[in-house]
Formats: sequence, C-alpha cells, structure tokens
Amino acid sequence: MPTSDGRLYGFKYVNGHPKNMREGRQTVTAFGVLADVGSGYPMLLSEMTILTALCTAATSALAAKYLAPKGSRAMAIIGNGAQSEFQAIAFKALTGIDRLRLYDIDRSASEKCARNLFGKGFDITICTTGQDAVEGVDIITTVTADKQCATILTDNMVGSGVHINAVGGDCPGKTELHRDILLRSDIFVEFPPQTRIEGEIQQLDADHTVTELWQVMTGQAQGRKTPEQITLFDSVGFATEDFSALRYVRDQLKATGLYEELDLLADPDEPRDLFGMLLRAALQPAA
Amino acid sequence: MPTSDGRLYGFKYVNGHPKNMREGRQTVTAFGVLADVGSGYPMLLSEMTILTALCTAATSALAAKYLAPKGSRAMAIIGNGAQSEFQAIAFKALTGIDRLRLYDIDRSASEKCARNLFGKGFDITICTTGQDAVEGVDIITTVTADKQCATILTDNMVGSGVHINAVGGDCPGKTELHRDILLRSDIFVEFPPQTRIEGEIQQLDADHTVTELWQVMTGQAQGRKTPEQITLFDSVGFATEDFSALRYVRDQLKATGLYEELDLLADPDEPRDLFGMLLRAALQPAA
Repeated sequence: MPTSDGRLYGFKYVNGHPKNMREGRQTVTAFGVLADVGSGYPMLLSEMTILTALCTAATSALAAKYLAPKGSRAMAIIGNGAQSEFQAIAFKALTGIDRLRLYDIDRSASEKCARNLFGKGFDITICTTGQDAVEGVDIITTVTADKQCATILTDNMVGSGVHINAVGGDCPGKTELHRDILLRSDIFVEFPPQTRIEGEIQQLDADHTVTELWQVMTGQAQGRKTPEQITLFDSVGFATEDFSALRYVRDQLKATGLYEELDLLADPDEPRDLFGMLLRAALQPAA
Repeated sequence: MPTSDGRLYGFKYVNGHPKNMREGRQTVTAFGVLADVGSGYPMLLSEMTILTALCTAATSALAAKYLAPKGSRAMAIIGNGAQSEFQAIAFKALTGIDRLRLYDIDRSASEKCARNLFGKGFDITICTTGQDAVEGVDIITTVTADKQCATILTDNMVGSGVHINAVGGDCPGKTELHRDILLRSDIFVEFPPQTRIEGEIQQLDADHTVTELWQVMTGQAQGRKTPEQITLFDSVGFATEDFSALRYVRDQLKATGLYEELDLLADPDEPRDLFGMLLRAALQPAA
C-alpha cells in the first residue's frame, strides 16, 4: 500500500441478485475501495460480501442494544440464508441473546444455520412456520432475500413489547413486513431520506415519523420507552457502516499480513513519462 | 473470469490531481470495472490511466478526421505531459499528421515527448513559446494539466482554418482557451449536458450552439464546412469511450494471456453458507 496522510474516502460496489443462489452464486456481490484524499490513489480493494454481512449484523445488534426489551434472551430469525449466523453472533455479543428460533421456507437452510452455530452458546429450535418461530421471543429478525414486497410477518404475529430487526427489505419493491405492523411500531432508521426509498417504510407516507438511530445513541432521542412498545429497526445499510468496515479491515492488514499487493496503477519512474514506461516495457521479455 | 451472457456494465474510478506530479505520482489515477448484468459479478478490473490516455487520444483523432482541414500534416501540442505522445500517435494513425511542434512550460517535458516519439515517423520541433508552436499548423492540441482557468491559447494565436483539439479543460474551473476563441469557433462536443459543466464551454452561455460529434459521424450534422472555419473539439471524456476501452481490453485477454485471476469474491460451495465457509477456512492452515 502507498502511504497516505490518513484522510480516506471510499466506495462500495454492491449488487443484490436473489436468483444467483440457484446458480450457486452469492446473492449479495460486493467489493469496496478505500482511496487517499490527497492523491486520489486507491489504497485498498476488499471483498465486501462478508463485510456487508458483518456490518449489517453489527448495526442491527447495536440498534437492539437501545431498542430491544431489557434482558432479551430469545430471538426469532426468519430467513436462514447467508446473513443469519452473523446476525445471531452479533446479537449474542451485544445484547446477550442465547436462544434462537429459526425459520426458513427451506428447512435445510435452518439446519445449515443451526449446524454452523453449534457449540457457540445458543439454545436453538428449528421451527416449521414463521408463527411458530416468533412464539415467546423478545426480538424478531427478518432477513430474507426475495426481491418482492413479501409479508414475512403478518400483523397478528407481532405481540406487544417485541423488537423487530427488519433486515431483508432494503430496496424499492423489496419489503418483508405487513404495513399494519409498521403502523403499530416506533420506527428507527439509519438515514431517513434513504430508508424512505429502500426500507420497510417505503410502504408508509413520506412524512411518517421515524427516529434516527444516531439520535438515540447520542441521547438526543429516546429509544425504548415502555415494555409494551413495539420497536422496529428498519435496516437498509448506510454508507458510513461500510466505510467503517473498510477502515477496520485496513487497520488489521499490517498485523495479520492477510493481503496481497496489486499492480493496478501505471507507475512510471517519471509521472509525465507514461508513454516512455510503455516503450521500455515493450523492450523487456514477458515476466 | 466467470462466464457471462455478454451483457456487461461498467464503471470508471478516476481522479485528477495535478499536484501528484511533484511527488512522482500520476496526475490521472484511474481504474475500471466491467461486471455481468445477469449476476452482478465483476468480470474485469483494469488500470485506466493508460486506457484513459489511449481513448482520449483516439476520440480526439476521430473528431479531427471530421473537423480538421483536409490534408492536415502539422500539429502543435501544447502541454507535453503524460498524454502528449498518445495524442501524436493517434493523430498520425487517423489523420496523417507527421509534423509536430511541441511546447511545454517545462522544456524537459517537450524533450521527453520528442525522445519517446523518435523513429515513429514525425518531424518534430521543440518550441520556446506557445505562439511559436502554433505557427503554421493545421491542428492545435492543448493538453495541459493545471487545474485552473488558464489561457494556454489567446485569441491572437489562432488563425482562420485551424482545428483546435482542446483536451486539458475537463472539469469545472479547469479551462485552457481564452473565451474569445470559443466565440470564433464552431464547437463540437461529446455530450452537451456534461461538456457545458466540464469543458471549455463552461465559459459560455448555457444555450450556446454546439454540435454533437456523433451527429457528424452519422451524417446528421456537418463537420468542417469551409477552409476558413475554426473548428473546436471540446474534449472532456465520455463514459462510452471508457466502456468501449474496457470491453476492448477484455476481448484481448484470452489471446494475450496478460491478466491474472483475482480472488475478490466470497465463493462458498453453497451460496447460503457464507458463515460455514469462514468456519472451514479457520480450520485450515494458512496457505
């Protein structure tokens, strides 16, 4: 990596292709770049499918710390695909969840999730319906992949006092919750202008009251107020989460050595002599 | 590379940092990506500093084919940095230019350019002023890097019948020509909404008449009409040029073998088992 004065900017390339799964490919295809503000040189190129799963789960669990009922132990996870285990582990670390009720329309996905979480301190139940999964839980996480306005949770499935962590609805035309649930919930979001387009609240009026998570974290707004309240974190994924994840990765590189140098940029001895560099390269035998 | 159905999309990451040169770095830092429309998987990651120089020069020479005076042989190149040789060679290939008059505020840049073009069929003169460089030429190429509204060409330097290839002015606040030259010229551009922001014509009224290059190429508009006319190609660089360059590179990969496979994406055996892939990777000794 070239040296930097430390001021970085970045971007994320990300695609959601639910159909990829049938062809043995990742639904979320992502990579990211950090670049140096001073020179414009890219500093880091990283995969972001795993990073997206990690930082989505971290943000969800962070939100739950402020919004879930005190002493929450049991969580339903509806949708047991690529992101489910990350969610479970993040919630265990930040909120103390140790009982999981798993449901997926494909039971083998739930079995895969349970197998992967074996020995990690969870009491796990595989459920046969979504209704069964939400029975008695404190937190409901929905993290399904289908790109449509689905109804993973119907209104009758959500009792008072629950915290809903709605992860899967994250682009226009892709939602998971019945609108009536939203109307009964106090809704918390990352960044309203984005969430109103991409999140569950695309189903609501554009001026429906929502609270920004950062306001809760800084004490400027209240999180959970009563035990009966239904709280909803309408997760869509916000740029600063990805930016933080990339910077975290970069900070780990030196100690872990888990990186390789890429020969991505033309690097002539004299910057104005780009053409001369090519002339000289043409004279050398191929490496 | 993964297989693709052939439908590709792409993006270019590009920065212009004129100050980089003083630190021995490239002014234009760029790379590009081609990705598969069907799956969202990235297919190609390529440097684009060299590609930008190549396709900028190719587009300039293409424009000159339609706009420069018939039988043009002599070209002034003002600004003899990283892109200058590419411009010269493209013009030789497409318009038959074989006499170059070089000028740069740093004479060593002109000497570098002349040295790199030695033996490539040019009669080259290094000039001591811009005024000297434009003496008797058919085409004036300005390709300087400074990020400011400069006046590389003043009005008195441009005689009738000349074609101006204005390459360096390519972002807001970065121009090379005196406004009066623009007012005397017939102006041709890649894409008006972009060029009005980035090009020389940012100095003109928003409704100033310009002609799109593609219209000339398809016969829907006329290029050069008279020998006396001053034509100006206000080059800023348009996305389809970069997209074409990336596809060209991709088409050359198989035959040349000049690529390496990048392990950029998480690739679990079962796409929903991203976490399981990490578990299994953790059990294996580091490669």
